[in-house]
Amino acid sequence: MSVVDACVPGCGADEANLLDAPRPIRIIRSNIADPSEFASEIAHADVIFNLAGEISHSRSMEDPLRDLELNTIAQLKFLSAVSSLRRGVRIVYAGTRQVYGPAAVLPVAEDAPINPTDFNGVHKRAAEQYHLMLSRMGRLDAIVLRLTNTYGPRLGLHAQGQGFLSVFFKRLLAGQDLEIFGDGSQLRDPIFSGDVVNAFLLAGIVPQPRHRIYNIGGPESLTLTQIATLLRDEISPTSTLSYRPFPADHLAFDIGSYTSDSRLIHRDLGWQPAVPFLSGVRQTLAWFLQGAAWA
Amino acid sequence: MSVVDACVPGCGADEANLLDAPRPIRIIRSNIADPSEFASEIAHADVIFNLAGEISHSRSMEDPLRDLELNTIAQLKFLSAVSSLRRGVRIVYAGTRQVYGPAAVLPVAEDAPINPTDFNGVHKRAAEQYHLMLSRMGRLDAIVLRLTNTYGPRLGLHAQGQGFLSVFFKRLLAGQDLEIFGDGSQLRDPIFSGDVVNAFLLAGIVPQPRHRIYNIGGPESLTLTQIATLLRDEISPTSTLSYRPFPADHLAFDIGSYTSDSRLIHRDLGWQPAVPFLSGVRQTLAWFLQGAAWA
Repeated sequence: MSVVDACVPGCGADEANLLDAPRPIRIIRSNIADPSEFASEIAHADVIFNLAGEISHSRSMEDPLRDLELNTIAQLKFLSAVSSLRRGVRIVYAGTRQVYGPAAVLPVAEDAPINPTDFNGVHKRAAEQYHLMLSRMGRLDAIVLRLTNTYGPRLGLHAQGQGFLSVFFKRLLAGQDLEIFGDGSQLRDPIFSGDVVNAFLLAGIVPQPRHRIYNIGGPESLTLTQIATLLRDEISPTSTLSYRPFPADHLAFDIGSYTSDSRLIHRDLGWQPAVPFLSGVRQTLAWFLQGAAWA
Repeated sequence: MSVVDACVPGCGADEANLLDAPRPIRIIRSNIADPSEFASEIAHADVIFNLAGEISHSRSMEDPLRDLELNTIAQLKFLSAVSSLRRGVRIVYAGTRQVYGPAAVLPVAEDAPINPTDFNGVHKRAAEQYHLMLSRMGRLDAIVLRLTNTYGPRLGLHAQGQGFLSVFFKRLLAGQDLEIFGDGSQLRDPIFSGDVVNAFLLAGIVPQPRHRIYNIGGPESLTLTQIATLLRDEISPTSTLSYRPFPADHLAFDIGSYTSDSRLIHRDLGWQPAVPFLSGVRQTLAWFLQGAAWA
């Protein structure tokens, strides 16, 4: 097992996360845009979990070319190498629900319109299409999982632009109050990291079907107020919740309510989210309280 | 009126095409990736017709990074400049039917699935999304026209990878025989350049609706055999038609039959194709016979 990580500043890489793995994991500090640096690992891979990329929507709006470089150009270079060094290998790509943009109906299924509201969504969509196109040509064997807000032990609290769950955990662990953008009625279906990992592992080994896109979302649809209240009650009961209008730069790419229709992956792969939000929050909190360097 | 053209080798730029314009047209030899070279033209534009790009599907497969550079990276740089130098300007972008990939049903409407079969389709799709996303944010006022096989006077005969109509015209004007890939039953709806120009002009001036995508296709659905036969009969009656299997590299990204459902632009803008294929072919032929340097 090898991990390739460019350790781009602000993207959340933390080698300590791999220390307690049951078997040693080799870490290669390299950018996927330079696949010649780990050609041997590509050539011998049984499965590739392609999680590389920048996930911050706001940063993509501040510097679109950087986001293009990290999420599209680098992926093209990487997949060109993979498809020639290890033609037809199974690759599972971490996509994002951001490609849909504002939902016309909830929950959102995989065939919903693609109207991304930020550069990150455009660039992640292009990378999805690289995977699927090369897969249909037989040069890869790709599955795309579109993730929604993910949380769990090892949640990156310090990187900017990693989403509101990261911000909420960080503030509450420090005993601070929470600010909610908007009126708190927006829906999300947060997914526990263990459920995401299970989906990736399943997608890595199932023989069929190929070159598919699957949404993976959490088991509950919750408003931001419900999420904030539950987190506050579990982590820092004396913290307060308040509301403020969306900052203009966030409002421009806000997608409103989103929940995932994950029935397709349940039907095809038998996957469904197993961890309720309260249980996942408690596991996350326990991990941070066991001495993680979150402060 | 100014034209910006990078005159990329093999992309068909020909300044002679502008010589008989009713009013002088200023030509700026510049790449849209370097918008600082024509910032004043951007700042004073009433309408921008964004036709820049590489259209060859085969070349995109041979050199995906080049296609990404020309069709996506350059567009991002250009649109970033446009949206700040001339915020909210009407821009009409030349998209392609190639973004759809193989059609599940004919004719193909704008909400059909997006499954491009080549890098060109992925990269043109990303550029479409830039336009529409920035338009929804108010930074542009964009309309995308998705073109199908276009022909007419000034058809580029010498650039590689400009599609089968260019190849057919070139061979027949030289009295050569035609080879058709496949069994000749594939459908296309070739569109006359004058009809395309009318669609662009309309899309450049209509106040509403905004940030829309429209298919524009020709008035007839014809098989490759019908197209080849008509061209042969008009241009070089002694030439023969023969059939051969698709070359492997072309088969990989062949989309099968395609015809455009252009009802949306008819409903919204009142546009429809006016020139039947036979009439368009005769106008094209007349232009070449009037002494164009096609030989």
